[in-house]
Amino acid sequence: MPEIRKDPVFGRWVIIASERGLRPNEFRGEAALENPYNCPFCPGHEAETPPSIYTLTGENGKDWSLRVVLNKYPALVAQGRGGSVADGMYDRMDGIGSHEVVIETPLHNRQLEDMTVSEIAAIFKTFILRVKEIKKDPAIKYVMIFKNFGRNAGASLAHPHSQIISMPMAPIRVVQEIDGAEAYRAENGDCVFCDIVRQEIEHKKRVVGENANFLAITPYASRFSFETWILPKKHESHFEMMDPGLTGDLAAMVKSAIGKLHVSMEDLSYNLVLHTMPVQDPSVDHYHWHIEIMPKLSLVAGFEWGTGFYINTVSPEDAAEMMNAGKKYKL
Amino acid sequence: MPEIRKDPVFGRWVIIASERGLRPNEFRGEAALENPYNCPFCPGHEAETPPSIYTLTGENGKDWSLRVVLNKYPALVAQGRGGSVADGMYDRMDGIGSHEVVIETPLHNRQLEDMTVSEIAAIFKTFILRVKEIKKDPAIKYVMIFKNFGRNAGASLAHPHSQIISMPMAPIRVVQEIDGAEAYRAENGDCVFCDIVRQEIEHKKRVVGENANFLAITPYASRFSFETWILPKKHESHFEMMDPGLTGDLAAMVKSAIGKLHVSMEDLSYNLVLHTMPVQDPSVDHYHWHIEIMPKLSLVAGFEWGTGFYINTVSPEDAAEMMNAGKKYKL
Repeated sequence: MPEIRKDPVFGRWVIIASERGLRPNEFRGEAALENPYNCPFCPGHEAETPPSIYTLTGENGKDWSLRVVLNKYPALVAQGRGGSVADGMYDRMDGIGSHEVVIETPLHNRQLEDMTVSEIAAIFKTFILRVKEIKKDPAIKYVMIFKNFGRNAGASLAHPHSQIISMPMAPIRVVQEIDGAEAYRAENGDCVFCDIVRQEIEHKKRVVGENANFLAITPYASRFSFETWILPKKHESHFEMMDPGLTGDLAAMVKSAIGKLHVSMEDLSYNLVLHTMPVQDPSVDHYHWHIEIMPKLSLVAGFEWGTGFYINTVSPEDAAEMMNAGKKYKL
Repeated sequence: MPEIRKDPVFGRWVIIASERGLRPNEFRGEAALENPYNCPFCPGHEAETPPSIYTLTGENGKDWSLRVVLNKYPALVAQGRGGSVADGMYDRMDGIGSHEVVIETPLHNRQLEDMTVSEIAAIFKTFILRVKEIKKDPAIKYVMIFKNFGRNAGASLAHPHSQIISMPMAPIRVVQEIDGAEAYRAENGDCVFCDIVRQEIEHKKRVVGENANFLAITPYASRFSFETWILPKKHESHFEMMDPGLTGDLAAMVKSAIGKLHVSMEDLSYNLVLHTMPVQDPSVDHYHWHIEIMPKLSLVAGFEWGTGFYINTVSPEDAAEMMNAGKKYKL
């Protein structure tokens, strides 16, 4: 079973999950991206995944349009003892939690930007429902929702899917992000993300999308070229507390941002990560959920590793200008 | 000129260096790894790099054996104003600093593990000399020394080289590492790295190399499969303060660790990063310089990005066993 180990210097947690080394990887070697015939996420292959936890039915009322299943090669599993134990000078705990896969569509090649707004909204509504269900277990402290798209972003299967990992502790960078936001509010009197929304709308140069309820920007200190964030305009610390009626506007913003990234970047790969409060914590005034999309233009060089210091060769203002003009970035 | 921007939530600094987007990349597309004919780091091409800052001469007393030059596509440059300025709610500063390249050998294909111990020791002695020289400028707060090897690690040129970047602030993760080590000492009474050295020597299962002055281990909470750290046994917070007489032992440990990684891993790529105290800070009892080697087995998936939460599919004990037995890891 997976084990979670704590680094004694940073306090960061690492999952040691040997079984995951066995998982298939379409992108490794010669595997075809376009081959739905042996894709475990395609219709007709339902027996190759663990059983559905949640299913949406399509317009014909009988075929599925979205499935949530357990990951066959989970990073964390439901069994095990809670609490951390000492291992000499170190600490570890059993890898308790869950690792779910959201198969976003039955269509192997229907990528996020090709879907309708209501199809994308159904994915976000599913995330909300799953988090609300998962957080009923008080042992689960954090639910991470993310999507890897493309070879350079570490995606192992091409069929459109996202992942939900629930875990017995909040990851260190989430804690630091919330602490940083709390310090900002103590000093400046408001939520830093609310201030970012206000300042970026006024400043305009980094805005790549806006509707009644959401704003898409290339953030001021972008770590990655064409990094894009989507923020709700209304303050809300927990993603799962959002009004489900707003998922349409969220979906429209995601569709537009990913669409612009595909136009501006050759052979786009990205990681999309939903940043939100730990699920058992109460709502707070200083933290604000949001989505971070990190395109992987080139491999991250050693300089960034373990230092938290990034070099980005495209300014966010240039990235926003190219995205809004529909211009392709030349490597 | 490059600009350094601060993220208002995390306090992490990002270098926005548009000029670096222009640099050549041998590994992109069809470029040959084995082609020294148009390599700017090979003998006969000295005019293609900025002039030498420092040169070592080989045994024949006339040809160079090692050169230090400025990076042609620097992340940071010498000119600019110091201090950070407000940019609306954000902060930025001019990208002051320097970016040097250490061309480790005249031989295009002589990789680190093929060099003699005294050739590798000469590289580390060069690092010490350069840091001592660079830190004379009080505006420089941190000197980052690193080496990217191989395509998956973001190396842009195959000829053996490492890099030295000096900067006007300490990177956030360096500050957090030192803070974490200080908290550990406050609680446990000793330097966490001294404790790691002691416990790992006693425990044996994660040791992959040891001599009189250095220890190589696969760390307990390894973020990457086959992650390897090299620690001096004697407490020293600043790398550049080490006794230059110990560089032979350090070189022997680096040669052995990289050699074992090459045997255990197919098509090895790695980032090697030297972790040390900010150069203007005094010596401290709680922090201990060391080297972290991060092999890049597969691309890092989205889960890790921005969360500080890693999934590693090879336990450090298994990695150490394979490295010590000279066994190849099967993907």
